[in-house]
Amino acid sequence: MTETPIPAVDEIVVHAAQSATAWAAVPPVERARALRRVAAALDSRAGDLIALARGETHLDEQRLHGELRRTTFQLRLFADVVTEGRYLDARIDHFDPDWLMGASRPDLRRMLVPVGPVLVFAAGNFPFAFSVAGGDVASALAAGCPVVVKAHPGHPRLSAATARTVREALTEAEAPDGVFAVVSGIEAGVRALEHPALRAAAFTGSTAAGRALFDIAQARPEPIPFHGELGSLNPVFLTRAAVAERLTALRDGLVASFTASAGQLCTKPGVVAVPAGSGFTEALWATGLARGTALLSDRIHYGYVSRLRSLADLGSVDLLTDSAEVFGACPAPAILRTTATAALGDAAAVMSECFGPATVLVEYVEDRELLDIARSLEGQLTASVHATDGDDVTDLLTVLAARAGRVVWNEWPTGVSVTHAQQHGGPYPAATTHTTSVGTAAVDRFLRPVAYQNVPDRLLPPALRDANPWALPRLVDGVPQPCPGTAAG
Amino acid sequence: MTETPIPAVDEIVVHAAQSATAWAAVPPVERARALRRVAAALDSRAGDLIALARGETHLDEQRLHGELRRTTFQLRLFADVVTEGRYLDARIDHFDPDWLMGASRPDLRRMLVPVGPVLVFAAGNFPFAFSVAGGDVASALAAGCPVVVKAHPGHPRLSAATARTVREALTEAEAPDGVFAVVSGIEAGVRALEHPALRAAAFTGSTAAGRALFDIAQARPEPIPFHGELGSLNPVFLTRAAVAERLTALRDGLVASFTASAGQLCTKPGVVAVPAGSGFTEALWATGLARGTALLSDRIHYGYVSRLRSLADLGSVDLLTDSAEVFGACPAPAILRTTATAALGDAAAVMSECFGPATVLVEYVEDRELLDIARSLEGQLTASVHATDGDDVTDLLTVLAARAGRVVWNEWPTGVSVTHAQQHGGPYPAATTHTTSVGTAAVDRFLRPVAYQNVPDRLLPPALRDANPWALPRLVDGVPQPCPGTAAG
Repeated sequence: MTETPIPAVDEIVVHAAQSATAWAAVPPVERARALRRVAAALDSRAGDLIALARGETHLDEQRLHGELRRTTFQLRLFADVVTEGRYLDARIDHFDPDWLMGASRPDLRRMLVPVGPVLVFAAGNFPFAFSVAGGDVASALAAGCPVVVKAHPGHPRLSAATARTVREALTEAEAPDGVFAVVSGIEAGVRALEHPALRAAAFTGSTAAGRALFDIAQARPEPIPFHGELGSLNPVFLTRAAVAERLTALRDGLVASFTASAGQLCTKPGVVAVPAGSGFTEALWATGLARGTALLSDRIHYGYVSRLRSLADLGSVDLLTDSAEVFGACPAPAILRTTATAALGDAAAVMSECFGPATVLVEYVEDRELLDIARSLEGQLTASVHATDGDDVTDLLTVLAARAGRVVWNEWPTGVSVTHAQQHGGPYPAATTHTTSVGTAAVDRFLRPVAYQNVPDRLLPPALRDANPWALPRLVDGVPQPCPGTAAG
Repeated sequence: MTETPIPAVDEIVVHAAQSATAWAAVPPVERARALRRVAAALDSRAGDLIALARGETHLDEQRLHGELRRTTFQLRLFADVVTEGRYLDARIDHFDPDWLMGASRPDLRRMLVPVGPVLVFAAGNFPFAFSVAGGDVASALAAGCPVVVKAHPGHPRLSAATARTVREALTEAEAPDGVFAVVSGIEAGVRALEHPALRAAAFTGSTAAGRALFDIAQARPEPIPFHGELGSLNPVFLTRAAVAERLTALRDGLVASFTASAGQLCTKPGVVAVPAGSGFTEALWATGLARGTALLSDRIHYGYVSRLRSLADLGSVDLLTDSAEVFGACPAPAILRTTATAALGDAAAVMSECFGPATVLVEYVEDRELLDIARSLEGQLTASVHATDGDDVTDLLTVLAARAGRVVWNEWPTGVSVTHAQQHGGPYPAATTHTTSVGTAAVDRFLRPVAYQNVPDRLLPPALRDANPWALPRLVDGVPQPCPGTAAG
C-alpha cells in the first residue's frame, strides 16, 4: 500500500464521520449479520490471505491458520455480543415522586452509544488478529463505530487484501458507505489521529510509539480516548518447590512460551525468577534450543539486537547462549542470566521489554526476593506464578494483581483466549486505559453513556422504550430485568 | 485550612497508597457500613455544617439543607451498590477443551478491582455534594480506593469540619488509617496529582483549570485517568409550537432554572433558542427578575462580570437587563439576546459558558436554525428540548444525543438526581472521560479489570470463588447467574 496523501486522509475521516449516525442506528441483528459476513468472507479467502501473510511476516503456516481462525471467531463472538445486548448497559429509572426524602426523581433512561469514528493502529506481530480485521476493528464495528485502520507497514499486501475483503463484505451487508477504510503511512496515521472528527483511537505496539501517539491524542484541542496496548515483561515466578517437583515440565513450558512466534508476542515471558542452585538455569541452557528464524521485519530485528546487546553488555547480566547464534540474521533463542540483587539494583536496565526470542532468568536466593521483584515491577499485561499446593504465595499474588491485568497460575502467559472473562491490558505501560483489547469486554472501549430525561417513548432509542423491542437485559429501577435464561453465545 | 506543605503532601499520598491493599480487601458489607457511618455522622452534625456553609458560600439555607441530604443519600446509595456487587462485573469462564475449533480455553475469572489512591479536587459551587464528602469521594471509597481530597479554597472551615467528621466516622468503622485525607492549596493539589503513587484523579470545575490539570495527569511518566467535569452551556431549544402553547410556564421554568443558586450550577441553561416574534423574549424581560445575591466568591464574581461584559460588548448581543443591576456586587439575573445568525457566525464568542446568573436568548426565524445551532455545539453535559406532541424533533434529538451526556425533554437541566440511570458527563469539554460523576455508575471511574487464569479457588478473591461467598451476580460462561430477584436498594 502506498502512503495515503494527507487530503485523502481528511476525506476518509470525514466520510467515516458522515456514516457514524447511520451505522449507529443499524439494528443490532443487522450489525451482527454484517460482522458474520466479514468473518465468512475472510474464511472463504483463507488460502490466499495466509499465503500473503507467509510471504510478508516469516510466521509459519500453522500459526497463521490459527490466528485467522481466531480472528473470524472473534468477529462472530462480537456479533453474539451485539445481539445479546448486555453491553449496552441499558438502565431505566421511572419517575419517582418521593425518591429522595420528598424530592422527586425524573424518568431517566441511560444506555451506551457508539463514540463515533475510531482510528485503529494495526500491529505487525499479528497480521490477522491485531490488524486490518483484528480485535479493535471487530469491537469498534460491533459497538457501532465507523473504523479507519492505519495499516502496519510490515504486511502491506495482506493489509490491502484483507481491507478489500472486509469492505466487500460490509457492502454486501449494506453497511453505510464510509464505515470502514484503511490508510497507510506514519504521517497519515498522525493526521487521522489529529482530525477533529475522530472520536477514539486504539493501538497495539511498542511503548515508545504508543506513548508518542497517546501524547498526540491527549494534546488535541478536544482530547480523545487512546486505548494503547504497549509493552510488558510478563514476569514469571517459579517457586523453589515447583522447580523441585517438575523441573523438566517447567523448562519445556518456558521454552515453548518464550520462543513461540520467535518471541514476538506481547505476552512473551521476558523475565523469569528462578531459584538459584536449583539446576533450572543449567537445564534450560542445556536444552539446545530450536534454531533461529527470521524476525518479522528488519526494524524489529534491529531493535531486538540492540536491546539484547545492551542487556548483554550490562556487567550484571550473562548471555548464556552462543553470541554468534543470537546475533545472526535468524537469531536463535537467547537465554540471559542475572541475580535478583542485580535486577533490583538496576531494574530500569534489566527489567524492560526485549521484543524477540530472549528471556532473562533472575536467580533468587531467598524466597522473599520474589516479593521484592514483584514490588519492583511496572504495570504488566500478565504475571505468572508456578508453585505447588504447599507454597504460601498469597502475598505474591496480591502484589502481582496490583501490577498486572492477568494473573496466571501454573500456566504460561502466551496464548490469549477470546472469551468473556479475558483481560488483555494492565496498568501503564502495559496499557494506557483501564480496558481490554481482547475478549468481549473490549467493546466497552468504543462506547459512551447518554441519559434521556422525560423523553416520550416514541422518541427514545429502541433500547430504552417501554416495550423493549430488542429484548435487551436492562436494569429497571435498580433491578435486573428480565430473569435471564439463555446463553450469550 | 492553611496550605499543605509539599513534604506533607508526599507523606499523605504515600500513606494513602499504603492503605490501598487493606481497604481493597475489606469485605463489601463492611465497606458499606463505613459509608453509612460517614453519612450518619454528617447528618448528625448537619446544623453546624450548614451554618459554616452559609457563612462561606452565600448559598441559602434551603439549598444547603437539600444538598447535604443529597450528599448523605449518595453515600448510602453507594453503600447499597457495594453490597449488591453488580459493579464488580464478575465473570467466570470455565476451562473449555474445545472453545475455538479444537483450541482449549483456560479457566479465566475477571472482576473489577480498585485502581488505588485517588485525588479528588473539590468544587466551590457544591460545598457538600461535590466537595470533601461529595460524589467522587463517595464513589472512590465505595470502589475501595483511598482518597485524598484537594479542598476548595471557597469554603475552608466547612472543608475542615467535614473532613474531621468523615475521618472520625471512618476511624469508628475501623477503616484502615490513611484511606481519607485532605490537602489544601494549588501547589499541594498539583504535587499530589504528580505523585507516582497516585492512580486516578477526579475534578469538577472550570474548563481552564480542568484542562490544565488533565494535561498534568496525562504528561506524567505514568499517565493516570483524569475524570474532569468541566464546562457546559446546557443549551435549551424551545419550539415555536411549545412557546405558543405555554409561554408563561416556559418563562417561569427558565427563570427558576437559570437563577437557581445564582446561576452557579454546571447545568445552568446558558443558551436558549427561542422563536423570534413569539413574544418569549419580551415576556421574560418583563418578569422583573429577582434581586441579585452575592456570588460564591470574589474570584467567581470577577470571572462572571468579565465574561458578561465581553458578551455585552459584542455588537451582536444585547444586554436586556439594566446594566447597573447586573454589574453590581450582588448581580441581578442578566438576560441577553442575539440572533441565530449572529450566534452561528461567532459561536466561539457567543456560545461559551458564562458561570453565574445569566442566559443568552438566541432568536431563530426558521425552524431549521434549531438544527444548525445544535450542530454547532461542542460537548455538553445536557441539552434540552421543549416541544409539543406535534413537533417533528427526531433529527434534533439525534444531533443533541451525539453532543450531550443527558438529553432532557420538556424539563429543565438543573437538578441532577442521584440514580442508577443518571449520566452527568458528556463529550469534551463537558468531561474528559466517558464516565459519569453523578449516579451509581460513577463507581466505574475508580476500577480496573483483573483476570485470574487457572488460579486455585482458595487463592482467588472471594468474588470469583466457586462458592460465591458474597452472593454476587456473575456472568458464568457468558450466562448471567443467578436469576436475580431482589432490588438493588
